[in-house]
Amino acid sequence: MAEQAQEKLPENVVFIGRKPSMSYVLGVITQLSNGQKEVFIKARGRAISKAVDVAEIVRRKFVQDAKISNVEIGTEERQLENGQKINVSTINITITK
Amino acid sequence: MAEQAQEKLPENVVFIGRKPSMSYVLGVITQLSNGQKEVFIKARGRAISKAVDVAEIVRRKFVQDAKISNVEIGTEERQLENGQKINVSTINITITK
Repeated sequence: MAEQAQEKLPENVVFIGRKPSMSYVLGVITQLSNGQKEVFIKARGRAISKAVDVAEIVRRKFVQDAKISNVEIGTEERQLENGQKINVSTINITITK
Repeated sequence: MAEQAQEKLPENVVFIGRKPSMSYVLGVITQLSNGQKEVFIKARGRAISKAVDVAEIVRRKFVQDAKISNVEIGTEERQLENGQKINVSTINITITK
């Protein structure tokens, strides 16, 4: 399901999943190197901590002129396969170069 | 170590640790009910996701006039017992009533 969502995302959105942090770091750096002025790092639930790691690693180790220009948190309602609805926390970190 | 740090914190700071989310939610609600206009929810590493859950549960379910007025992310250097230094991501969520 995450994979499907990812296909629809615009280029400058990096959605954090189960891969190691460094593969998302690479994704963000690639966007910024390709001329994107703004990259959005998005995550849900347990992946939120990893999203913060990714933003911090990009800013501190790789793209020194990048800034965390905005951090938003929220809640999304998701429907489980059995029809039950659950609330999941979300984060949206904006990195600006 | 977390316990020690907690003792020194001012009243309107809730530091997220290993307890269930609801005990921190209760902590934040108590502060807001006691007249605090601003409560800071802080967490490091894996606890960052739980910090977002706590802020969102307070705002959506318990204190409807509370707002997430600021979200900051950062990095802290911590020294392990063997002397090795590691970087840990941090979050600081401000809830304002």
